[in-house]
Amino acid sequence: MKALVIGGCGFIGSHVVDRLLRDGHGVRSFNRRPERFRAPLANVDYQFGSLDDSMALIEALTGIDVVFHLASTTFPGTADLNPQSDVRDNLVGTLNLVDSMLDLGIRRIVYMSSGGTVYGIPEQVPTPESHPLRPRSSYGIVKVAIEQYFDQYRRGRGLSPLVIRGSNPYGPRQAHSGVQGVISTFLRRAKEGQPIEIWGDGSVVRDYVHVADLADLCVTGAFSDIEGALNGGSGRGASINEIVEIVSAATGLHLDVIYRPARGIDVPKSVLDVHRARELLGWTSSTDLKRGVAETWEWMKRQDGLAAGRRS
Amino acid sequence: MKALVIGGCGFIGSHVVDRLLRDGHGVRSFNRRPERFRAPLANVDYQFGSLDDSMALIEALTGIDVVFHLASTTFPGTADLNPQSDVRDNLVGTLNLVDSMLDLGIRRIVYMSSGGTVYGIPEQVPTPESHPLRPRSSYGIVKVAIEQYFDQYRRGRGLSPLVIRGSNPYGPRQAHSGVQGVISTFLRRAKEGQPIEIWGDGSVVRDYVHVADLADLCVTGAFSDIEGALNGGSGRGASINEIVEIVSAATGLHLDVIYRPARGIDVPKSVLDVHRARELLGWTSSTDLKRGVAETWEWMKRQDGLAAGRRS
Repeated sequence: MKALVIGGCGFIGSHVVDRLLRDGHGVRSFNRRPERFRAPLANVDYQFGSLDDSMALIEALTGIDVVFHLASTTFPGTADLNPQSDVRDNLVGTLNLVDSMLDLGIRRIVYMSSGGTVYGIPEQVPTPESHPLRPRSSYGIVKVAIEQYFDQYRRGRGLSPLVIRGSNPYGPRQAHSGVQGVISTFLRRAKEGQPIEIWGDGSVVRDYVHVADLADLCVTGAFSDIEGALNGGSGRGASINEIVEIVSAATGLHLDVIYRPARGIDVPKSVLDVHRARELLGWTSSTDLKRGVAETWEWMKRQDGLAAGRRS
Repeated sequence: MKALVIGGCGFIGSHVVDRLLRDGHGVRSFNRRPERFRAPLANVDYQFGSLDDSMALIEALTGIDVVFHLASTTFPGTADLNPQSDVRDNLVGTLNLVDSMLDLGIRRIVYMSSGGTVYGIPEQVPTPESHPLRPRSSYGIVKVAIEQYFDQYRRGRGLSPLVIRGSNPYGPRQAHSGVQGVISTFLRRAKEGQPIEIWGDGSVVRDYVHVADLADLCVTGAFSDIEGALNGGSGRGASINEIVEIVSAATGLHLDVIYRPARGIDVPKSVLDVHRARELLGWTSSTDLKRGVAETWEWMKRQDGLAAGRRS
């Protein structure tokens, strides 16, 4: 099978690419920018462009059997700064992608939605896929609209969508600039001896999933006949304070924590109910959080070593 | 108070303008096109433009206390033909409107959403505002996204939104081209001696509300402090076959009905629970359906007489 990975140079996308290659699939990667943390892979066909460029999309889609859409121009914490751009880049762009797919007769798409934002403040934790969708941020509103369009295109135009509502992915190749992922941000701060800022008392609970497990769910799901939404999380919650402890233990470094007043936007507890993915696909997030954080730490040290080597 | 009515030359908008003028408010009307069925009113400040034109919007918003947004470039039956345009024109356009409002310090907006599409296939009929939002068409997906953005702007930026989820409005000045409103379409067909086409067996039930009642709800609500969503319907259902009977009785004309195979998109029964508007505002849709249809018929005959007079 030949797969197109939209966002294949991104954090989740790069792991989906790895998994597809390991399984023997042909891979084309469509991105706005090259990969940040490693050199281009010899057996990947890289193409560059954005989702509003129909001609670039058609070129990228030609000969493709299945599309993985793992790109977003925004992060949960940044999308509210410019909702108009968020809608244009991500919602209109995604509609342009599926319109182009259907024009070329390509029906199967796996889309990375957001288990942490589509449900809003959950009435039920762990939260199942059937929970009402009540997003409270631009990031979540756009994801929900995309999911609803996918379902409408499924009914009316024969699209075959699988939506993965990922929880909080972490692991190697995650950026650590502060907008994406507390684990990579905390590891980076620990390495640089800088303090960590926590909004609130650190009791906020999230569901952290190793990126390779999430990529496994995307690829396993893509080659099944399942349509609709699947939660992609660990099904277990960890507080920010627990993450601080785990990062301390993994790095052997002391972390200075500065507690800031809580931000209004934080949902106190978000953990996904992941029974559906287990029942339908036999999938579980198998990486233990402590082991995954330790592995990410090893990657970060190795990465910095490589960067230092390149500089010298 | 000075009101800006976006879509004031449209069907619902023209009745909101009438009601505002009657109550002694200043009215500016912002539209893509002039009014179809009557000459410009002397005491309305008409401005023309579209919601993607920020400079035209800022000019239209200057000096305004409250905004009524009653415009849509699409109809429920047409939006699915081009979802990208629907999102760009209506969702991005509406975000541009509220961004411009907040830049100018205008907080109050009344928005016409769609009680017939935002709930999807209702689990509960009559359907209350608390029902999950599960739109199945582009028209409904865009309305829901706009409602969610309004709530996010309310929490984060001080917008004061009142969302009216209108049912199926009918009455004078509704177009009768077939895409908007079965009542005006059926009246027109009766007048021209043409047959009526019904998809399915005519048992589909909808909630019809007289446009002047809906305009009353918009204006009464605008000057209250209520935020969030209110259903705007009659709370009573009528089947398509009942509408045929009511139109026959109102016109005294026989209607030929051609039954076509049912379309997949039709929700069998859609009736709004309108208790919330009654409890919070004392509002009810007071116009009896038979009386309202008869009044619309009188308007249509008068309108045709005027048009014939202009032509001769």
